Amino acid sequence: MRLILLGFGVVGQSFVKLLLSHSTDLYNEYGIKPKVVACADNGGIITCNQGLDLDRLLSVKKKKKSVVQYGSNTGTSGILDVIENMDAEVVIELTPTNITDGEPGKSHIITAMKSGKNVITVNKGPLALEFPSLMELAEYNRIEFKFSGTVGGGTPILEFAKRCLKGDRILNLEGILNGTTNYILSKMYEGLSFSQALKDASEKGYAEKDPTLDIDGYDAVAKLVIASNLVMNMKSTMSDVQRTGIRDVQATQVVNERKKGNAIKLIASCDGKKLVVAPKPVSKKDPICVDGTLNAVTFTCQHSGQQTIIGKGAGGMETASSILRDLIDIRNIIRS
Amino acid sequence: MRLILLGFGVVGQSFVKLLLSHSTDLYNEYGIKPKVVACADNGGIITCNQGLDLDRLLSVKKKKKSVVQYGSNTGTSGILDVIENMDAEVVIELTPTNITDGEPGKSHIITAMKSGKNVITVNKGPLALEFPSLMELAEYNRIEFKFSGTVGGGTPILEFAKRCLKGDRILNLEGILNGTTNYILSKMYEGLSFSQALKDASEKGYAEKDPTLDIDGYDAVAKLVIASNLVMNMKSTMSDVQRTGIRDVQATQVVNERKKGNAIKLIASCDGKKLVVAPKPVSKKDPICVDGTLNAVTFTCQHSGQQTIIGKGAGGMETASSILRDLIDIRNIIRS
Repeated sequence: MRLILLGFGVVGQSFVKLLLSHSTDLYNEYGIKPKVVACADNGGIITCNQGLDLDRLLSVKKKKKSVVQYGSNTGTSGILDVIENMDAEVVIELTPTNITDGEPGKSHIITAMKSGKNVITVNKGPLALEFPSLMELAEYNRIEFKFSGTVGGGTPILEFAKRCLKGDRILNLEGILNGTTNYILSKMYEGLSFSQALKDASEKGYAEKDPTLDIDGYDAVAKLVIASNLVMNMKSTMSDVQRTGIRDVQATQVVNERKKGNAIKLIASCDGKKLVVAPKPVSKKDPICVDGTLNAVTFTCQHSGQQTIIGKGAGGMETASSILRDLIDIRNIIRS
Repeated sequence: MRLILLGFGVVGQSFVKLLLSHSTDLYNEYGIKPKVVACADNGGIITCNQGLDLDRLLSVKKKKKSVVQYGSNTGTSGILDVIENMDAEVVIELTPTNITDGEPGKSHIITAMKSGKNVITVNKGPLALEFPSLMELAEYNRIEFKFSGTVGGGTPILEFAKRCLKGDRILNLEGILNGTTNYILSKMYEGLSFSQALKDASEKGYAEKDPTLDIDGYDAVAKLVIASNLVMNMKSTMSDVQRTGIRDVQATQVVNERKKGNAIKLIASCDGKKLVVAPKPVSKKDPICVDGTLNAVTFTCQHSGQQTIIGKGAGGMETASSILRDLIDIRNIIRS
C-alpha cells in the first residue's frame, strides 16, 4: 500500500516505528506491505516513488529537524500538488488540530478525497468543524475515511460504539474525553486549588503552555462532535455544543461534593438531541468516575444496557496504534 | 434466514421478542428476514418449514409451559435429527450451561457443525470444556461459530478484544467475570459477613439455589477459558485454570484491605501462559474495581496500553442482544 504521510511529529514518528517493527506481521496477517511515498512536516514535503527508507527518514527528522533534509533522490513541490498527483492509496493526515478553520488539515483531507484517495486522520479540527460535509464528500468520492484516533487516542472508543454495539441503538453517550482537565480535577479532589492543580499539570507535561483548548472545554467539545456524529447519527458541528470549561470550578465545590461521595468531572454528553460539555458531580461509584489523565465513556443502549470503556486517551504510540488499525480496516475493505 | 432455536428460557424468549420488535430494522439495515423453523425446550421440539408464528410461540410458551403445545401444523421428532436434516442456516444453542460434560449443548453444536450449519451459542459449557476442538470442527466444516454472549452477556467483551484491538497484541487480560460473586464481595466490603452477603444475594435473585458454580469460581473459569482462547490464542480448557472461589474470604480480610484502599475481588486473569481465578485485593482506584453485579475486564496491549470495558454482564434482554449481533455478523459474512 502506498501511503502519503502529512505531519511528522510524535504520532507520525511513532507510526513509522510501528510500520518498521511490524512489517512481518502486517504482511503475514493482513497482506499489507506499506510504502511511504511522501512525507511532510512544517519544513516541506519530500517524495520518493519507490518508497522512502523509513529508518533514514526517522534519523533525518531527529538529527536535522525536518524531513526535507532527507536527500537527493527526492522531489519537492507543493503539498496539495503531491496529494493530488502522487500515486497513493492512503493519505494519513497528522498535522496539529486547529479548531478555528481546520487548516491545513482540512485542505489536505479535501484534496485527498477529491483525488480518490482514502484518508486516515487523528486531526480533530476538520471533523469538529465540518463533520457532515466531510462525510458526504467521502461518500461522494467513494473513499474510506477513518479517524479512530481523534477520540480516545489508542482507546478504541469509536470502533467500540460502531462495531461492538451493532444491532443495538445507542440512546445516550456520556464521558470524560479530555485527560488534562481530568488530571486537574483529580488533583483538586485531593485538595489542590485550580491554579495549583494547573501548575502541577503543566510541570508534568499534561497541560500545554496555552491550556485554553483543554481548560475551556474545546478539546472535549471537538471529540464529542466527532463521537456523536459517528455513533448517534447527529449532524452537528462545534457551534451546536453548549460548552462550559473548568476555570470556574471552586475548591469548596469540590470539597462539598466529595463529602457527598461525588467528584466533579468535565462531562461531555449527547442524548440524541442536546450536546453538552460542562463540569458536573459524578458519583465515585459510577464506572466513568476515573482519575488522573484517564478517559472514560458510557454508552447507554436500548437492549444491552450501559457499557463503559476506559483508557489512556492520548500518547504517541497509543495514537499511532489507532492509525495502524484504520489502515488494516482500509486494506480489508479495498480487498473485499 | 432460517433459524433453529434450541432452548427457550428467558434468553430465548427475549431473543424472539427482539426479532419481533426489530423486524423492519433487521430487513432495512442488514437484509435479514429471520424465520424460526424449529424451536426446542425441555418438552421437545417443534418444526414448521414455513416459519413459526413468533407471537403465538411466545404465548404458547407462557400459557402452556412448553413449545410442543404450539399446534397441529408442526412436526415433532428427535432434536438431533431436526438439527441434522432441517433446512436452516443458523442453529442458535441456548440450553443451560453444563460444565460437567457440556450436554446437551455439545451434541447440538457438533451436529449442527457437521451438517454445515452456522452456530450461535450463549452456552458456556461446550466451549469451556472443548474450545480447541470445537473451533477446529467449525473451521473444518467452514461454518461460522459465534458465542459473544458467553462472556459478559450483553457487554461485548469478546468483540471488543477481537475487533477493536486488531493490529495490536493483547499481552494480558484481567477482570471480574462473575456478577454474583462481585455482588457478594461488594456487600462484604460494606460490612456483611460472607454468609450474610450470600443470603442477601439469594434474596435479590442474584444467586442460584445451589450457588456452587458462582461461589467456587467455575463460572468465571469457564468465561476465562473462552476469552483467553479467543483473544490470546490459548489452547486451554477448564482443567488448565488454577481456581480458588470466594467461600473462604473472611470479613476481617476485607476490612483490612479496605483500610489500605483496596477491595477484594474475584479476579480472572491470563498472561498468555498462566490462567488463574482467585480472590485478590484490587485498588479502589483501578478501573476494574467495580461494584454490585457489574463485570469489568482490562486488556493490556503492546501499543495501545490498558483498555477497560465495564458492563452488566448478564440479563435476558442484554444477552439476547448479543445473539442478534452474532446473527448480523453471520449474515454479513455469508453475503460477502
